[in-house]
Amino acid sequence: MDSAAIEKRIRDSFARQAFMATVGARMATVRAGHVEIELPYAAGNTQQHGFIHGGLVASIADSACGYAALTTMPEDAAVLTAEFKINLMSPATGELLRAVGRVVRPGRRLVICSGDVFAIDKGEEKHVALITATMAVVRMSGDLRD
Amino acid sequence: MDSAAIEKRIRDSFARQAFMATVGARMATVRAGHVEIELPYAAGNTQQHGFIHGGLVASIADSACGYAALTTMPEDAAVLTAEFKINLMSPATGELLRAVGRVVRPGRRLVICSGDVFAIDKGEEKHVALITATMAVVRMSGDLRD
Amino acid sequence: MDSAAIEKRIRDSFARQAFMATVGARMATVRAGHVEIELPYAAGNTQQHGFIHGGLVASIADSACGYAALTTMPEDAAVLTAEFKINLMSPATGELLRAVGRVVRPGRRLVICSGDVFAIDKGEEKHVALITATMAVVRMSGDLRD
Amino acid sequence: MDSAAIEKRIRDSFARQAFMATVGARMATVRAGHVEIELPYAAGNTQQHGFIHGGLVASIADSACGYAALTTMPEDAAVLTAEFKINLMSPATGELLRAVGRVVRPGRRLVICSGDVFAIDKGEEKHVALITATMAVVRMSGDLRD
Repeated sequence: MDSAAIEKRIRDSFARQAFMATVGARMATVRAGHVEIELPYAAGNTQQHGFIHGGLVASIADSACGYAALTTMPEDAAVLTAEFKINLMSPATGELLRAVGRVVRPGRRLVICSGDVFAIDKGEEKHVALITATMAVVRMSGDLRD
Repeated sequence: MDSAAIEKRIRDSFARQAFMATVGARMATVRAGHVEIELPYAAGNTQQHGFIHGGLVASIADSACGYAALTTMPEDAAVLTAEFKINLMSPATGELLRAVGRVVRPGRRLVICSGDVFAIDKGEEKHVALITATMAVVRMSGDLRD
Repeated sequence: MDSAAIEKRIRDSFARQAFMATVGARMATVRAGHVEIELPYAAGNTQQHGFIHGGLVASIADSACGYAALTTMPEDAAVLTAEFKINLMSPATGELLRAVGRVVRPGRRLVICSGDVFAIDKGEEKHVALITATMAVVRMSGDLRD
Repeated sequence: MDSAAIEKRIRDSFARQAFMATVGARMATVRAGHVEIELPYAAGNTQQHGFIHGGLVASIADSACGYAALTTMPEDAAVLTAEFKINLMSPATGELLRAVGRVVRPGRRLVICSGDVFAIDKGEEKHVALITATMAVVRMSGDLRD
């Protein structure tokens, strides 16, 4: 697949992730092995201290990693997250979160990714989370789409 | 704190997690060192294949672990997730997810938790995810509440 | 494979793990989906505070999980650790460590395991570590043995 | 502490990690927030397929992260690994392993590190593992040294 086809595939699939729409996330950068997702602040996304919920920080980091992995897949294959681990280093505060996912090791059965989440607070960027993830490659069949 | 006070503390704090309301999660069981959170199916919570988003499976597992840890805290201390790792063993499908969080090791600075997520699909329960988490104990001050 | 053949397979493979002999570990219990490895104290296994090195605690936990997974494999398949995460909850002290590995989810491509490490100190057992692991199934060919 | 004092502290502490001597590991590079440990091939360090045991790959990665964290500590504080997660992306083969540990986030209570392990095989370097770790800061007292 050429880079335009890859980008279209990723953006179309992201548009079908209803959960990303629910929380207000948007696909920013897409290139081979590298995807960035942005999440503007919303009061509905907070935990009890007013920070963005750690699970949601993880959600955009996981999605960024998964889509980075998907950029490396042939047309008949997709990926599902097998596992991820995230270190939440600082509370996620501010006007925008940006999750960056990168492919560290492509593969036919497993794709290993790493990523970071940054919080932009009054224009300053802070590194708030660190993720590593294993994506399992699945052959698409029947009604399993990207 | 007695068990009624602990349960009230947990339920009040959960009620302030706006994100849990956004996704439709509810606090089910609360007892010392053990918390269960339920998430009924909602179309707005899905990823591109129609499964519940893995990040949201992680979110309720993380919350269940965090609240299990909070049941062990004195009044002037709260917890924040330092890290978690989740294995997503099967796609999360069906009418309800149930996340169970348990304290494995209480502590004054770190609390170690483990948990599981089950999917109830046509009345059958399937074990879909496995989490371990480290909660950092924070002393409450100023406007940091539970 | 019947249970005697499985146990023989595991013990023969363990006997070929030179590293386990180097550190003095021994295979204790083997049954379907459950393996226990013991490591008596040795001064050569310590870190700078005199505790057993955390990496070695992880090593026996990883081996216990890997062999638990191998008990579920057909003859022509083996496993390699794809990833693991370990929480080291207490320093590993005392006369013996015992690592328990269990299969949580068998599979044809991935096997998910969890495990615990206990330290036996003056006859008292303490839970010192908690592991979760993903084992990748590999088909054996050429010179790749168990 | 100045950089010479930090380096001396790290090398002295490493020299007391008996387990690192048992497996033949040596401290290579030490600078603020960055440590590299090397492990030449030894038959006694292998698992059943002849690869270096994954637990040992993890051990040198964990030590590299721990010592990277220790470079950031004041004289009266040390670190213990609270948890780590490692992705073992390729079998560890070849004549030498090199583990690189880096501090991602220093702190007074927790230090977050990441690291990589490379295998040098016939002069070619391959990225074989990816680690993230949480180090807990401990105040030294009594007989707890670095």
